[in-house]
Amino acid sequence: MKLLRHGPLGGEKPGLLAADGTIRDLSQAIGDIDAARLSAEGLAEIAALDPMSLPVVDAGVRLGCPVASVGKFIAIGLNFSDHAAESGLPVPKEPVVFMKATSCIVGPNDDVMLPKNSVKTDWEVELGIVIGATARHVSEEKALDCVAGYALIHDVSEREFQIERGGTWDKGKGCDTFGPIGPWLVTKDEVGDVQSLGMWLDVNGTRKQTGTTATMIFSAAHIVSYVSRFMTLEPGDVITTGTPPGVGMGMKPPEFLKAGDVVTLGIDKLGSQRQSVVAFESVYPSAAQ
Amino acid sequence: MKLLRHGPLGGEKPGLLAADGTIRDLSQAIGDIDAARLSAEGLAEIAALDPMSLPVVDAGVRLGCPVASVGKFIAIGLNFSDHAAESGLPVPKEPVVFMKATSCIVGPNDDVMLPKNSVKTDWEVELGIVIGATARHVSEEKALDCVAGYALIHDVSEREFQIERGGTWDKGKGCDTFGPIGPWLVTKDEVGDVQSLGMWLDVNGTRKQTGTTATMIFSAAHIVSYVSRFMTLEPGDVITTGTPPGVGMGMKPPEFLKAGDVVTLGIDKLGSQRQSVVAFESVYPSAAQ
Repeated sequence: MKLLRHGPLGGEKPGLLAADGTIRDLSQAIGDIDAARLSAEGLAEIAALDPMSLPVVDAGVRLGCPVASVGKFIAIGLNFSDHAAESGLPVPKEPVVFMKATSCIVGPNDDVMLPKNSVKTDWEVELGIVIGATARHVSEEKALDCVAGYALIHDVSEREFQIERGGTWDKGKGCDTFGPIGPWLVTKDEVGDVQSLGMWLDVNGTRKQTGTTATMIFSAAHIVSYVSRFMTLEPGDVITTGTPPGVGMGMKPPEFLKAGDVVTLGIDKLGSQRQSVVAFESVYPSAAQ
Repeated sequence: MKLLRHGPLGGEKPGLLAADGTIRDLSQAIGDIDAARLSAEGLAEIAALDPMSLPVVDAGVRLGCPVASVGKFIAIGLNFSDHAAESGLPVPKEPVVFMKATSCIVGPNDDVMLPKNSVKTDWEVELGIVIGATARHVSEEKALDCVAGYALIHDVSEREFQIERGGTWDKGKGCDTFGPIGPWLVTKDEVGDVQSLGMWLDVNGTRKQTGTTATMIFSAAHIVSYVSRFMTLEPGDVITTGTPPGVGMGMKPPEFLKAGDVVTLGIDKLGSQRQSVVAFESVYPSAAQ
């Protein structure tokens, strides 16, 4: 299934993408696509519905993050050896874990806002894992049993904030709008082998990133198992798993996003996103400094 | 006011500490002490109640985290110059920001569980800031207008996970039970000058940390202003603001927590906590590895 949430920011309703390409509303059938709904049983209840019996939603509707009330937004860094190389950093011996502020989560096609005073806002196409069951010291073999599905994530990053301002990467990863998720949560049965998905990202129509989940250093199963040793993963948590090469920071000379740019990105089976880049001042013209 | 939440983990009800020292139940008067309740208006509604008219709760009741559904659990590192020195790290030029997993939050007197395979679990008494209003690029002068109040926090830390396992500090800061918060959320009107509060922490009755919020490098107001430039702070977010010297990592030789230890800690006006340290295996005897 391809589950989604449609409607205005903060007022999204649950829905799904039917086989005929129409968006169908689930709000009369279930509460929301949230922690309680992401269990195997909760998903089976949706699967038992006839999509064609559900109300059609206008195809132009805004899509939100397909998961309501994400608890933790965890991220893995340097998970492709060639991206580590372009970042000037060694290939990690074990997963690099950091966290994105949940307040940065937006819909897949919402605007990406440059932070105030940002000069190094960069792009990263990533595979997102949506947790469906509690995982605490889960083995790699059983890790995917705790996964509800997958979603496309744009791990937008401000490199000066991330790297040059002291402390951890978290400072440059959680700015407002830095976490577009969606369009769909694709349940794992529909994804099949999650380690064989093509990935791409364009800026203004020019291909910047090309990759595949086949070259991830640490697999989705390994990541879920690994992170579950350091913090308990709960239904509704999301893990974004690192980006292939081709980010702006790695260009010679480096390239970064500017207002007016359009970013499009996608992963096989998980759909695509399109964001317009806008200036902070265009959204908050009178924000205090 | 001293607001609290009482009852079993996951089933806490709102309450307050009355002037006569009794715990009073608020569950028939308000929903919960959550994001919506932390606004100035929401707190004023509680202040308008007569505590003596509320039902008395048994004094031995378990206390939970005084804030329900914490959205982001943000932390500041190295915020006391002598703690930076004992950690062998330079005094930061601007606040070091990292994040604790919200799944680590427990009540003030709940057990602290050593992570599986942990050998370096350490203590840190800290002042916690509870956000009551949205803060985005708020000035230092107006920052405390966005604060609902303060709470005592134990920023439990696993030093090997934090420092020796690659990546950011987040890996050693968000293990289950690593975030005791409470006993109370003390509203800011009752705290007065937040930069003049004594702080202490004992392990097995021996004083380890003695400090005061007067020697914080970055004040609460500065921290709220600063963090709000990198991520939007929302009602129900919590920021823990760094620890004074005396952590186990800084001892010669280093000392770390072991099962059976008892940690007590407190901050003037914010109350005290008491935790028993327990082994992972005593809580999860059959957890898979």
